[in-house]
Amino acid sequence: METQTWIQISADSDFSYHNIPFGVFSTACNKEDARPATRVGDFIIDLREAERQGLLNGELFSKLSHKVFQGKTLNSFMELTRPHWQEVRRTIQSLLHVGSALDTNKELQSKVVIPYTDKIILHLPAQIGDYTDFYSSYTHAYNVGVMFRGKDNAIQPNWLHIPIGYHGRASTVVVSGTDIHRPRGQAKPPTAEKPIFTECKRLDYELEVAAFVGGPANKMGEPVKVDSAEDRVFGFVLMNDWSARDHQAWEYVPLGPFNGKNFGTTISPWIVTLDALEMFRVDLEPQNPEPLPYLKEKRHTSWDINLEVYLHADGNTKADILTKSNYKYMYWNIAQQLTHHSVGGCILNAGDLLASGTISGPQKHEFGSMLELSWQGTEKIALSEGKERTFIQDNDQIIMKGFAEKNGIRVGFGECAGKVLPALPENKYY
Amino acid sequence: METQTWIQISADSDFSYHNIPFGVFSTACNKEDARPATRVGDFIIDLREAERQGLLNGELFSKLSHKVFQGKTLNSFMELTRPHWQEVRRTIQSLLHVGSALDTNKELQSKVVIPYTDKIILHLPAQIGDYTDFYSSYTHAYNVGVMFRGKDNAIQPNWLHIPIGYHGRASTVVVSGTDIHRPRGQAKPPTAEKPIFTECKRLDYELEVAAFVGGPANKMGEPVKVDSAEDRVFGFVLMNDWSARDHQAWEYVPLGPFNGKNFGTTISPWIVTLDALEMFRVDLEPQNPEPLPYLKEKRHTSWDINLEVYLHADGNTKADILTKSNYKYMYWNIAQQLTHHSVGGCILNAGDLLASGTISGPQKHEFGSMLELSWQGTEKIALSEGKERTFIQDNDQIIMKGFAEKNGIRVGFGECAGKVLPALPENKYY
Repeated sequence: METQTWIQISADSDFSYHNIPFGVFSTACNKEDARPATRVGDFIIDLREAERQGLLNGELFSKLSHKVFQGKTLNSFMELTRPHWQEVRRTIQSLLHVGSALDTNKELQSKVVIPYTDKIILHLPAQIGDYTDFYSSYTHAYNVGVMFRGKDNAIQPNWLHIPIGYHGRASTVVVSGTDIHRPRGQAKPPTAEKPIFTECKRLDYELEVAAFVGGPANKMGEPVKVDSAEDRVFGFVLMNDWSARDHQAWEYVPLGPFNGKNFGTTISPWIVTLDALEMFRVDLEPQNPEPLPYLKEKRHTSWDINLEVYLHADGNTKADILTKSNYKYMYWNIAQQLTHHSVGGCILNAGDLLASGTISGPQKHEFGSMLELSWQGTEKIALSEGKERTFIQDNDQIIMKGFAEKNGIRVGFGECAGKVLPALPENKYY
Repeated sequence: METQTWIQISADSDFSYHNIPFGVFSTACNKEDARPATRVGDFIIDLREAERQGLLNGELFSKLSHKVFQGKTLNSFMELTRPHWQEVRRTIQSLLHVGSALDTNKELQSKVVIPYTDKIILHLPAQIGDYTDFYSSYTHAYNVGVMFRGKDNAIQPNWLHIPIGYHGRASTVVVSGTDIHRPRGQAKPPTAEKPIFTECKRLDYELEVAAFVGGPANKMGEPVKVDSAEDRVFGFVLMNDWSARDHQAWEYVPLGPFNGKNFGTTISPWIVTLDALEMFRVDLEPQNPEPLPYLKEKRHTSWDINLEVYLHADGNTKADILTKSNYKYMYWNIAQQLTHHSVGGCILNAGDLLASGTISGPQKHEFGSMLELSWQGTEKIALSEGKERTFIQDNDQIIMKGFAEKNGIRVGFGECAGKVLPALPENKYY
């Protein structure tokens, strides 16, 4: 039996009663006044105002000596503990019930509940301290390996033992809807003797799911054990890890990707919590070879989250779907990624972002990047209205969607979208 | 003729009248009360108090609508422009002159000037947004290349065209004096079939100089031109980029160093400005091959800064010098590094940290890491009191020093020091 809510929520909404994601918004008339919120159906619940009105005072929140939703980001909330996050989610759910204070007190309702319209501006949900990108989908690692090293050496010897990852760039993580300029940089065409300075000719997306770290930071030097690692995960967003393949190919040996990635990374605005996703948890296949003890979990799981990527080609009337993948296609899961990250003693702070790496499934239509879909640009990807692509062209828009569905319950992420603008004129560079 | 100051500054002090570095301190009786300061000889000048007392009101500062030294970091100051930084340095210098307000008003002096004693606690000077580590010393790149790939392929094809760098971890950048636990992690001994979980057996230092970025951030998508790049450099610190060589060797293909580095990075507490270093500027040899136009400077320079590394072995009465290098041994300089970093459109914010990479000179005693000095552990490094090392042992302390000297004028960095504590017991990990 579905719980009766006074807010109308359509059955296909990502933002159901069971979701209660966290984000930050402002309104067009006062853009700078960013504040924490949740979203339910086609409404926003202003959590700064809800907290001021005393609506969030559960057992744990009553004991806090400070308010947590009065800043411009969710960091203060994320620094608390999982029981705090759970309490707020339950409290908000109870406010949606018929007969709650928010239902019956219309003056209160008018202060706290805001229709979701095009006047709503969504912001980055947190101040991101450090951003890390992993590389944990087997199919993606295999595909890229085959392209660059051939079938026999596709998977590097360390990949099956280590959740391989690298430090990314936090300053250019942006929220869905932010346009991205096509980057310029160095590339070395296969036939050229020397590198050239060129706009990116192989601009790509990477379909990822990123976790926001929460909870009190581990002390420097002290690891997070794998079976408690999920307590350090506040929730998930969708991520497009834009990639300049030609720049990346020339620069990445031996220290990894740099300018090929740091021109922009887009995330969806609403952080979906682990509690909202719990009913979609699925077991993963046992890992072979067995992980080292510090990475060996009591239960090896991920979540069944459908992931889709659409390309809206410049000039077309509608978007085409390019990728249908799933968050269950992870070899190393978030607990293992987080524990591995901390094992040398690295501090993980609330607000840090840990991305999955490109999530490709085994079928071709499940590949999470155009590099894989066009097999390094050798095969055209057919679009509607007679268009085709190998990589992203100027004024194309990439839209990612993610949602879990089971027993008539839907929990989704909304969109992670971004448009590619032309490169800046060359006289901006020298 | 040396300027007459009322503060006694010994001739061998790093913190001369010509230096005026910026840092953050508190006192042992109120550790949390961190505030910006400069250091002159054996005194600290409290800039929060100096600003409150109206002592910093030069022409540009008088026009500001907000105070800049009232926070716990230097970020607000760093976000201003180079003329602002120059004005404050000149203002402080004038306060040191005989007959200045700070000389004659003893009550004021007692509020603003604090003897530098062991009751002074130094903090990270800024909240670091993103930390980037470059790889720009030719000798270091060559040495590491010879060890891993042999003489013929020592320098990678991209190295002479790109100031190669990678994103590092900001959360574990710590100030001089912070102890570092020896990390545990994965390594694969050459004879083993599988990796093992082990404490680091090849713990190393890397001698670096790091630049704090300052000035208004470039817009996302917009590069910083190379001939104006120095306006985005607030100043320099010394850096020890601690490295777990055995962990790094197993993990770094294909995405670069991760846990081999992110357990800790130590910087010296005082940021020395480019203005203090200007008289030590030196021309570098023309680059061959010629850099691409966006990296081609009107004048290719660095600074003549002596850099030293000492190892104080556990149980020894004094430290031994291991490395004598110099900041002039840079192939790619800070302007080129910063411009390359921004060329794809990456935002550089005030408070970001850009490290040089290990600075090795051509002579063996100038090598900036024990990996090079012991040639991958194959040669013992002799210390005093009968000790020897190939890598760092528990309870050893590494101390870096840096200073420039010319015409009797000295500008130095003080120390960048850290002790290695034993690894945590294995039951902390699983």
